[in-house]
Amino acid sequence: MERFVTRRRVEFADTDSGGVVHFSRYMVFMETAEHQFLAARGIDVDTRIQGKRVSWPRVSVRCSYQRPLIFGDEVEIEVGVARRGRRSMTYTFLLRRGDDEIASGEMTSVCCVIEPDGRFTAISIPPELAGRLEEGEPGS
Amino acid sequence: MERFVTRRRVEFADTDSGGVVHFSRYMVFMETAEHQFLAARGIDVDTRIQGKRVSWPRVSVRCSYQRPLIFGDEVEIEVGVARRGRRSMTYTFLLRRGDDEIASGEMTSVCCVIEPDGRFTAISIPPELAGRLEEGEPGS
Amino acid sequence: MERFVTRRRVEFADTDSGGVVHFSRYMVFMETAEHQFLAARGIDVDTRIQGKRVSWPRVSVRCSYQRPLIFGDEVEIEVGVARRGRRSMTYTFLLRRGDDEIASGEMTSVCCVIEPDGRFTAISIPPELAGRLEEGEPGS
Amino acid sequence: MERFVTRRRVEFADTDSGGVVHFSRYMVFMETAEHQFLAARGIDVDTRIQGKRVSWPRVSVRCSYQRPLIFGDEVEIEVGVARRGRRSMTYTFLLRRGDDEIASGEMTSVCCVIEPDGRFTAISIPPELAGRLEEGEPGS
Repeated sequence: MERFVTRRRVEFADTDSGGVVHFSRYMVFMETAEHQFLAARGIDVDTRIQGKRVSWPRVSVRCSYQRPLIFGDEVEIEVGVARRGRRSMTYTFLLRRGDDEIASGEMTSVCCVIEPDGRFTAISIPPELAGRLEEGEPGS
Repeated sequence: MERFVTRRRVEFADTDSGGVVHFSRYMVFMETAEHQFLAARGIDVDTRIQGKRVSWPRVSVRCSYQRPLIFGDEVEIEVGVARRGRRSMTYTFLLRRGDDEIASGEMTSVCCVIEPDGRFTAISIPPELAGRLEEGEPGS
Repeated sequence: MERFVTRRRVEFADTDSGGVVHFSRYMVFMETAEHQFLAARGIDVDTRIQGKRVSWPRVSVRCSYQRPLIFGDEVEIEVGVARRGRRSMTYTFLLRRGDDEIASGEMTSVCCVIEPDGRFTAISIPPELAGRLEEGEPGS
Repeated sequence: MERFVTRRRVEFADTDSGGVVHFSRYMVFMETAEHQFLAARGIDVDTRIQGKRVSWPRVSVRCSYQRPLIFGDEVEIEVGVARRGRRSMTYTFLLRRGDDEIASGEMTSVCCVIEPDGRFTAISIPPELAGRLEEGEPGS
């Protein structure tokens, strides 16, 4: 699998009074990296299919924290695909600062449409999106 | 193990443009429930030991999302202790809205002192805190 | 004008590495106090009018910070109505911790419907809401 | 005064269930732009002076919102200096998306040291910082 890598700089509002980045902000770091990974494959996460908005809510997430990040740090976030399901994508994330491994995570997002009443209905990943997701896979 | 249950109401700032609570906010919901659990045992998470500030950074967290929460929902958060280590605590969390199970999570926090230079050093949970954590355990 | 007062406790995620509550979180404190003020008058901010969702986006906000808040502080937030317009409401906020004045703010929110394409259109505050807002006014 | 301009892309976590960027996130956008403005002048906001950490807490902030931002928007943030005081800096901010004016704001930050007990003490802006702030001024 090819590597997809993005970078961001820790903002002051990412930190907490322990002096380091709050652990909840890693979720945002991972989500935005996921969106950039998809954008690099021509996939807009906020799209419409047959008039309905598509969303990719999480069904599970986990993160292990090895070293803290502080204000001003530049973080490198590597995104990989652990599993490409019919309705869901499972991504892996590796966060580094220089040579230091900071954290690793995994997230499963399900392809859904948002119904007019606001409810989410899981759908098969539409063929045009699935095709773009496959193009980044090994052997393709 | 006795149940510890706390409640909170979803705020507008907790939501995202998918119309539901952003998945990163569950981390905050779990963390604050942990702090309330500790406070109920007389443990102040922001304390000092021998002049150094104590902090409980996460080493790992996971969450499974079953149903979305929306603005205004009242959430019940049940906290349990999965494992009481020498230096760490592993908590379980169950989030409910009425009879609906919303999410379940697990978090491991390590007892640390913050050194003057800002670094974290893991320490054994001080006896007075360990004693208070034990009091809530089965058979005690 | 009668006083409307609400309280909240500072959470760890509200703080930043300066050791105090991040100044952006006061916006959330004020907004939630506004929503509680409205709820106390029987007004649900997330309602529908003629099938369209109503929202109250801000057109302006300001805040002066006198003293910092730290993790665990209990904050009292007093909400007042500075101006009740045809389409907008201007609220004042006073944040206190015990006898200490922490911050004061002002916010103007405009009554809007969210169009199917996501755009906001300002509308006159619907009579039933206007009536409830008036009931809390002096001399009524 | 020379213009300092920075850009950022709206992340999903910046939005709320009204479908647009939550108004509190503009505070973060402005703060990070301020930090980048300072960094461009060789000023690290998280520095130490005579062994004490320096911080620039806000004493006041205001923002007027003209148009909403949505997920994925690229925002341009222009930073200006409205007033350079002995102890404080007042910045102006102009947010644009393409040709559209999105919001304008103002913020006053005070130069402080963080005392060992966590309290903030306002200090005169140290000469080496003041010098760098002046270099960017008209006529200099």
